[in-house]
Amino acid sequence: MADTINFTRGVPATESFPLADIVEAAKQAIQKHGTVIMQYGKSTGFLPLREWLADWYKVSVDQTLISNGSLQLIEFFGFHFITPGDVVFTEAPSYDRTITLLKRHQAKVVGIPLEADGPNIEALEHALAKHTPKFFYIIPDFQNPSGATCSLEKRQKIAALAKQHNFWLIEDAPYRPLRYRGKEHPTLFELCPQRTFHMLSFSKLIGPGPRIGILYGNAEMLKKIMKIAEDTYVTPSLLSQGIIYEYCRSGKLPAQIEKLKALYAPRLQACLDALDKYLPDAQATRPEGGFFLSVTLPEGTTTAKVLERAKAHNLNLAEGEAFFPEGGGERFLRLPYCALTPEEIDDGIQRLAVTVKEVQEQ
Amino acid sequence: MADTINFTRGVPATESFPLADIVEAAKQAIQKHGTVIMQYGKSTGFLPLREWLADWYKVSVDQTLISNGSLQLIEFFGFHFITPGDVVFTEAPSYDRTITLLKRHQAKVVGIPLEADGPNIEALEHALAKHTPKFFYIIPDFQNPSGATCSLEKRQKIAALAKQHNFWLIEDAPYRPLRYRGKEHPTLFELCPQRTFHMLSFSKLIGPGPRIGILYGNAEMLKKIMKIAEDTYVTPSLLSQGIIYEYCRSGKLPAQIEKLKALYAPRLQACLDALDKYLPDAQATRPEGGFFLSVTLPEGTTTAKVLERAKAHNLNLAEGEAFFPEGGGERFLRLPYCALTPEEIDDGIQRLAVTVKEVQEQ
Repeated sequence: MADTINFTRGVPATESFPLADIVEAAKQAIQKHGTVIMQYGKSTGFLPLREWLADWYKVSVDQTLISNGSLQLIEFFGFHFITPGDVVFTEAPSYDRTITLLKRHQAKVVGIPLEADGPNIEALEHALAKHTPKFFYIIPDFQNPSGATCSLEKRQKIAALAKQHNFWLIEDAPYRPLRYRGKEHPTLFELCPQRTFHMLSFSKLIGPGPRIGILYGNAEMLKKIMKIAEDTYVTPSLLSQGIIYEYCRSGKLPAQIEKLKALYAPRLQACLDALDKYLPDAQATRPEGGFFLSVTLPEGTTTAKVLERAKAHNLNLAEGEAFFPEGGGERFLRLPYCALTPEEIDDGIQRLAVTVKEVQEQ
Repeated sequence: MADTINFTRGVPATESFPLADIVEAAKQAIQKHGTVIMQYGKSTGFLPLREWLADWYKVSVDQTLISNGSLQLIEFFGFHFITPGDVVFTEAPSYDRTITLLKRHQAKVVGIPLEADGPNIEALEHALAKHTPKFFYIIPDFQNPSGATCSLEKRQKIAALAKQHNFWLIEDAPYRPLRYRGKEHPTLFELCPQRTFHMLSFSKLIGPGPRIGILYGNAEMLKKIMKIAEDTYVTPSLLSQGIIYEYCRSGKLPAQIEKLKALYAPRLQACLDALDKYLPDAQATRPEGGFFLSVTLPEGTTTAKVLERAKAHNLNLAEGEAFFPEGGGERFLRLPYCALTPEEIDDGIQRLAVTVKEVQEQ
């Protein structure tokens, strides 16, 4: 029987981890900074890495905070912004783990329908006529789970609305450095710095295991988040941060990002080609970077049925509904392609097409 | 002017970190487990370390969970147990960061007065007549902040009360492995496994920077905590855990614990000797291990006044009130001694005695 193919979790390719460089960085870090990175420290993270990351984004150190992975930043925003019943906006679909955390804080999560070029602005304006949210959580670049990228025009409009209605933007940008083709748009943080927190899952560019997330934002607001972080875990993992600092300091990150692009671009292309070949009628996003694309299955064909049937073909898929904060997503299918080879992708999408046909003929 | 002496944070001595061994462990870990520890994984932590830690406590792997530092476990208990207004018990005084987190979850935190041999049992029974708490958070060995150790008799009584009244015990035992003299009592987890979670700040024995906390408990309950952990941060820092695993696997932990005892025992003794010498009338705990002892200042002499006045002697002290969940602690002074040399301790307590006298004469 054919090997199992997993279109499930959005994880980087194991073969992309620069292990020899990490061994060297670990040695350097422990020898040079051992007494600091083996001790307690500030909740803002290992200072040299914080300085390096501030410089990377051309912001000041007090606008930069390092966390134990980026998801936990959502938890901090929950404690900072949300009292039960407060309204927050996300795109619909959005990152399922963020939605789970926001609901754990008993936020009312309103989903703004997402299109291939970003949130539907009319729907956003309609929602703003009803509620002023505490914040709008948005993934403008190569969105998880859809693969959509927000157009410049929509970014400008969203920034203007945030200023006009006085709500915060939480811009989650883990995939932004992974553009395989096309032109980059400015971030919301660039367009509207006074109303935007910009976050990313930084260590994912090297390997997620060290769990290093970053938050950039207004220094006064960050002080409050730092206190929440301190109350939560005292200090993030300084040992991990020291190692990643030495890796970054040695100048290896740009080449690593180029390596990732060279590895992932053909995987995205394999996805797009296989969709054209095996599922030519599929409504799929056509991203220019990132980890994901998504397919909306034909009318009457649910993801749940396809997911169930796909098991017979040794194809693992993820359900779509968890990505939608207020229901929907019955025909939504996320396809994370980074951890699969082009051959596996071709094979997997062929199996998907067969499965969809079987479900339609049931 | 004399150097500043800090009796403030309870941190281990920097000179105790086994840096050369950690360099070697890091190399081994990244070379052997790199593709696992640089990747996402389960919220329960790096499996080989989890297995090692299960074996260390002679429990099963599914009774063992590794977290990003032990404080965050309190956060998970908050999400698991507490709805706003729920009653929980702590000792009074107790670890201030735990009290802060419990209050962030809007628990009503009831403090059970602590004596040199553990919680006042009459007060506990009195509190139980009024409320059945969701749990009693207790630090039976070398308590933070008091230095008190719970007697065997009181442990047995607390275990019996937990069974009788159906509440959980959260036994926090970071200092238990650091007994410098005297005899160990059984843990609450040994006396009452069906009602006890046992947690500790494990990496503190090596260095806190890797942020490795452990939770031992009932496997079914732990499954729920694991889900909360996954929702919060997906995966704890596997890079740190891989390194600490290789350190532990190499058999170096027992010698490290002996090294800590040999380093800290004279520091505790220096504290006790200096108190006898300079503050013979002080009401101080006389612990047999751990990081802390505590002093109750004479009637009419507040910690706030002493703390303020001490600055003139380059002596930094911590306020007492944050350790008391329901008020009190105006004359409570915690003295963490591990990160100070015996000479600094003697000097510091001499300065403290001078300061107390000055405040009394004000």
